[in-house]
Order: sequence, then C-alpha cells, then structure tokens
Amino acid sequence: MQKVGVLLFQNFETLDVYGPVEALGRNTDKFTIKFYSLNGGMIGNAHGVNVLSEKLEDAINGLDIFIIPGGYGTRQEVNNKPLISLIKQIAEKSAFVLTVCTGAALLAKTELLNHKNATTNKIAFDWVVSQAELVNWIRKARWVVDGKYYTSAGVSAGIDMTLGFISDNYGIDFARTIAKQMEFNWQENKDFDLFSEA
Amino acid sequence: MQKVGVLLFQNFETLDVYGPVEALGRNTDKFTIKFYSLNGGMIGNAHGVNVLSEKLEDAINGLDIFIIPGGYGTRQEVNNKPLISLIKQIAEKSAFVLTVCTGAALLAKTELLNHKNATTNKIAFDWVVSQAELVNWIRKARWVVDGKYYTSAGVSAGIDMTLGFISDNYGIDFARTIAKQMEFNWQENKDFDLFSEA
Repeated sequence: MQKVGVLLFQNFETLDVYGPVEALGRNTDKFTIKFYSLNGGMIGNAHGVNVLSEKLEDAINGLDIFIIPGGYGTRQEVNNKPLISLIKQIAEKSAFVLTVCTGAALLAKTELLNHKNATTNKIAFDWVVSQAELVNWIRKARWVVDGKYYTSAGVSAGIDMTLGFISDNYGIDFARTIAKQMEFNWQENKDFDLFSEA
Repeated sequence: MQKVGVLLFQNFETLDVYGPVEALGRNTDKFTIKFYSLNGGMIGNAHGVNVLSEKLEDAINGLDIFIIPGGYGTRQEVNNKPLISLIKQIAEKSAFVLTVCTGAALLAKTELLNHKNATTNKIAFDWVVSQAELVNWIRKARWVVDGKYYTSAGVSAGIDMTLGFISDNYGIDFARTIAKQMEFNWQENKDFDLFSEA
C-alpha cells in the first residue's frame, strides 16, 4: 500500500487537490490518502470547501507520494518559512513529489527543483518563474517529469499528470482503465499542450 | 449572487463533487457554494476526504442550483426515505438541479425525472435504470438537459456538464474562458460521448 499525502493550505485550488485524489483514490488496494496542513485542523477555500487535515509534521518521515496543489493561497505560502522548510524535508524523503498548477512555486522555494525541468500553470507562469529562477521552467507542457518530481500545468492538468504517473509506475493499460472508469478523456502525451498559446 | 448547494453523503465520489465546484466556484462574483448532508457535520469517503456540511433541511426553501453527486454511497442512499423526501422538496423549489454520475439515481427516486430525458454513468447504467424505470434514460450522452434538470455521465462528465450549464445561462464565451483558466479541454457537445461504447 502506497502512502499518499496531500498538502492543504488556506485557499488551495479545489480541483488541484481532488483531481489527483480521484485518480489515485479509486484504487483503494494500492493507495491510502491523507491530507495535511502546517497546523492541522480545518482548511477552507473560496469555493466553500472546509476539509479536515492532519499536522504536516506527522508526514516528516516521508511519504510514497507527496502532492502539492496550487491556488491563490500559494501567494502567501511561498513566504511561509516553517511551511517551506517542512515541505523540503518531506519532499526529500518521499519517493515521488507531484505538484499541480502553482504548487510548483511552493516546491521550487525549497530549491529542490533548481536546475531541474518543471512546469506550472499558464496564467501565473511569470509569477512562478520569479519565485525560483534557477529552475528550468518549461512553458509548453501538460506535465513534466524530472526524476522523482512530477509538475503539471494548471488545475485540470493535474489529472492528466496523475494518470501519467500511474502509467509510469503501473503500466499504461492500468492508467487507461482508470481514465475510462472516470470517463475522463486523458491526454496521454505530456508534451502536448493546448493552452500554452493562450 | 446565485446560491449553489451541493449534496454530500458518506462515500460520495470525490470528483463528482469537486469538478462542478471548481467550475462554478472560481466565479466568486456569481456563485456562493454550500455543502449539505442529511444530518450535517463531517462527511467522508474512501479517498480519505473528510469535509464539513450543513444540515440539508437548511436548504428546504430552495437553491438556485442544487448539485447531486454520485458514488458508491448512492447504493445505500437510494433507500434512505428521509433523504429522498428532502431531495424532492429542495429539487422542486430549486431553479436548476444538476446530477453527476449515479447522483441521477437519487434524483430519479423522487420521481421528478419520470418521463424526462436523463443520463448517468456507464458502468452503473443498468443499476440506475433499475431504480427508476419511468425515466427516459439516454445511454449515449456526455450530459442531458431536460428543462431545469441537467444530468451527466460519469465523474469527469460533471465538469463538461457544468460548463455547459454556465454556457446556457451566461454564454459560451464565458464558459470557454472558465475552461481555459482551468486548462480543461472542455467537450462542448453534450451529445458526443467517447465512453458509451465501453
């Protein structure tokens, strides 16, 4: 059983979290998912979501899969030194780290992405780049893989990336079966990006 | 401001809820979203989600938009008479009712869909049909509109349907803008269905 930990913070983007959670979570024989925030407790966002989380330090020994979403809250959290420090420790010890949208900015702040390939969403692209200029940011990509780091473009791209992650680790037939169960038109090619011309 | 109410119950399907919530919720000037369950309080599912809800009777005077998700929990809830009774009262008074996946079975149990066109997900299609045989169930559809009732196919189709609902009420340009912000490859044609041959 693979331990999945999802980071939450105030004003996380709803689908950044729950898209990957749907793709992994429906395989209850393979993945168990827990939600974490810096101080634990209820975390909310502007979509009216209020969700329970555990203390992030409980994940300090590492996870199999660490997921970092984006959202407006990242504008605050990039400057939250205790949070970035914990993200760094957990990311270093996790087997894989997946970011969605501006979640890449939080991971990049740890400097673990320096000189690695990564992507993020289109609308906030320049802001994310300004947060960590030693990352090799790739604008035209649905998602990017560099070693254990998976980074996706905005919001919905997190679902495509998660299916890509499942494909890389469990085979493309399994990933396609999940996409079909979700009735999701999975874009299997991580380099094809409809939105980079926007 | 349009009042959106989302029904929750134990073992709701994660993306059935949060896909539509993402598409509506990012328009904070147009929609406010609240989450309801029969008894209120924390509601969970097999994906590790634990989310706060208000009592469903608080929505008894009707909503502008009432969203009913699917998931394994519907297998229990179709037989929950107090829940179906409240769903019926709220659906009658709401301006629009949107169901995702097997959420259609819960709405159909109220008999409000009798002799109307509706769809649901592919894998549980026959089970849903068996719950309400007076509905005109349509197998090949991404989503179906019949008056104020919008019903979608499985899981991800709820996002396409919600964008279709936004398009019908606010124009296709606005819906396309939201899809682009979400980096979502919106399937605009509700009659085109990749998954009905499955």
